[in-house]
Amino acid sequence: MKGFFQLISSSRFYRLFSRFSPLPEEVLPVPDCLGRVPSGDKLTAEERLPPFSRSTMDGFAVRARDTFGCSESEPALLEIIGEINMGSAGTKFTLKTGQAVHIWTGGELPHKGDAVVMVEYSHLMDRQTVEIFRPVAPGENIIRAGEDFEKNSTILPEKRMLRPQDLGVLAGLGTTRLNVHRRPRVGIISTGDELIAPDQPLAPGKIRDINSTTLAALVTEAGGIPKCYGIIEDNLDKMLAVCEEALTKNDMLLLSGGSSVGRRDFTLQVLEGLKGSELLAHGVAIRPGKPTLLASKGNKAIFGLPGHVASAMVVFYLFVRPLMRLFSGLAPDHGLQNIQVRCGEQIPSVIGREEYVRISLARKPAAELPVATPVYGKSGLLHPLIAADGLLVIGRDVEGLDAGARAEVLLFP
Amino acid sequence: MKGFFQLISSSRFYRLFSRFSPLPEEVLPVPDCLGRVPSGDKLTAEERLPPFSRSTMDGFAVRARDTFGCSESEPALLEIIGEINMGSAGTKFTLKTGQAVHIWTGGELPHKGDAVVMVEYSHLMDRQTVEIFRPVAPGENIIRAGEDFEKNSTILPEKRMLRPQDLGVLAGLGTTRLNVHRRPRVGIISTGDELIAPDQPLAPGKIRDINSTTLAALVTEAGGIPKCYGIIEDNLDKMLAVCEEALTKNDMLLLSGGSSVGRRDFTLQVLEGLKGSELLAHGVAIRPGKPTLLASKGNKAIFGLPGHVASAMVVFYLFVRPLMRLFSGLAPDHGLQNIQVRCGEQIPSVIGREEYVRISLARKPAAELPVATPVYGKSGLLHPLIAADGLLVIGRDVEGLDAGARAEVLLFP
Repeated sequence: MKGFFQLISSSRFYRLFSRFSPLPEEVLPVPDCLGRVPSGDKLTAEERLPPFSRSTMDGFAVRARDTFGCSESEPALLEIIGEINMGSAGTKFTLKTGQAVHIWTGGELPHKGDAVVMVEYSHLMDRQTVEIFRPVAPGENIIRAGEDFEKNSTILPEKRMLRPQDLGVLAGLGTTRLNVHRRPRVGIISTGDELIAPDQPLAPGKIRDINSTTLAALVTEAGGIPKCYGIIEDNLDKMLAVCEEALTKNDMLLLSGGSSVGRRDFTLQVLEGLKGSELLAHGVAIRPGKPTLLASKGNKAIFGLPGHVASAMVVFYLFVRPLMRLFSGLAPDHGLQNIQVRCGEQIPSVIGREEYVRISLARKPAAELPVATPVYGKSGLLHPLIAADGLLVIGRDVEGLDAGARAEVLLFP
Repeated sequence: MKGFFQLISSSRFYRLFSRFSPLPEEVLPVPDCLGRVPSGDKLTAEERLPPFSRSTMDGFAVRARDTFGCSESEPALLEIIGEINMGSAGTKFTLKTGQAVHIWTGGELPHKGDAVVMVEYSHLMDRQTVEIFRPVAPGENIIRAGEDFEKNSTILPEKRMLRPQDLGVLAGLGTTRLNVHRRPRVGIISTGDELIAPDQPLAPGKIRDINSTTLAALVTEAGGIPKCYGIIEDNLDKMLAVCEEALTKNDMLLLSGGSSVGRRDFTLQVLEGLKGSELLAHGVAIRPGKPTLLASKGNKAIFGLPGHVASAMVVFYLFVRPLMRLFSGLAPDHGLQNIQVRCGEQIPSVIGREEYVRISLARKPAAELPVATPVYGKSGLLHPLIAADGLLVIGRDVEGLDAGARAEVLLFP
């Protein structure tokens, strides 16, 4: 089997993820939950919001019927029985027919008050009397208690990555701690006798390790906790020992090294040599990214990534990131923004493999869709990575895309 | 002036930012620089990449001319003078006419070697002899030393927020520490006697503070360091003291509270009362977000935000985030992904104010553009915030958008 892969499609690769489960939960203060995913049942409101009926305007709380039919020429005259200071109980007042209370935006409505007249449509005759020029309907300029969220109502859709506004709403509902899935811990191991760490002096035949730094940042960007184990020499026993140790402390391992066939075989030996591991995939029909390996050990995943960082990045976005999202409690997609573009030039491809072409985007003011132009470069160059904005997807059964054709781009985050 | 604003346009508001400068730099290890912006001159390569001419394939390093004219029927016969192990010096070999060296992907080329024949186009006759079936051109299947980056060449465009691949390239070039702009520190202060902290028991007329939690998460999401000062009572001296103290420790303050006219006037008094402060803006012609205040004190900025969290979020994305980006060393834009959509229904607006309508997006497979549908809700409700994907922009001179019209949406991050 040396050097050959049993390619599976990317969709079959995704189906392998069904054997993995979200990580256990932990309890965190709500302000620390940005980007996390609540675990367990759907979140429901512990209290109602707003907790009382509130004014949404500065003006006068009234009984709406007392304003019916009033106008500029025939204002309604109401007796002011008081003022509701912010943060004080509005319900200490009870409106009788013909009465009003001065109220501020956010203030609690008095008993029997069912609408608020904006201050713009009122005129103070004296301290006890106000003229109202416009009728209000019941419910106008107020939010009634529980109108936003009733007690026990659902707050958020399931499998939601929490956004700032979600945390704000939870805070507003008095929820201060949340059960969320743990963030995935991802061990990163580089292999290759030709690699040296970025801070070491260069030597003949040696090249600096790029993948550890890139993969660690990709893990961070995707919400995980990276741990770099450095460059491990090409020695199976040493490598297996490091991997076994790393597996005790991480939910996922990313192995990457050179792109030579020998190196791929070495990674395969490592994946097969881990105690209790099961090899799940040995090659994917995508380009770049063909020599991708995946093994599992219980609920832990071990990826063998292509050696070149550009290919490793594609595999990270297509497969590693989705599995990290599954571990985090989300649907296992890549979570990248997916946009429609036009091809700026003809882009050739080959039948039988999905292709992910690095592109840069340009916008023309008049055009509906941005224009994607491939950022080509010899295999192995890093330059194109700096210039690229995302990956243009060419389907498995497509020979290429014509200039001007519509296509889909996965944007880098 | 009580209660009235001198509205300026959003573009004039942005021009006020020209008085602010990026924050001082700090030195960080490269792996910690994700999302940071290099300070100072443009970054140049300290060494060349790759450091030596490398093979991009497994095969045989050759002198290209020795393969000219060869074919399946008339292979070139070359003498194998050795094998270049990964990470060892390839230049210990010098190819004479008719010689080849076994080489792996990433291996250093031997002296006089100028191309690599892929192993697929070779056949080992014996340990000393290889048949080559396809000619290679000089430079084929190799990357020459410095082809990716020459020494002293520019690595990254200026004002670049560093991405994972950028950090990888820096690591590959032996750059281990970077000067980057400091992250903005943002103090967050809520005001209002009606507010209580999310963990306090409810009381009549009281409502939980939503803005502190939301704004802190927005600051984190935008790469800043939030610091919440809690809920400060409606007392000018107390408030001024907290603000002065917070200004010594932060680059920016965000004040938010209720939406009543009284509260706005109070915030204005605070901004005007700070020692050495200058009021720069007092209202913006946008909706929501009209009652936005901006003051400066040296290179520090103090924002008075609208009271309702939905409006405060709009102002955060439109103005606070751009200024945070300027502080971080970036161009002062909002940094939100901007996409074209079609309006799912007619959306009314008013002439004279830019409008930012919360929308949810849906994609139809056949359509080029996603469809944006407004997520309406009474002023003051939080529900629509949970459902919204972004903000649809309606220009100042537009009365509204028809169903099916093309429009621009700023996506929430």
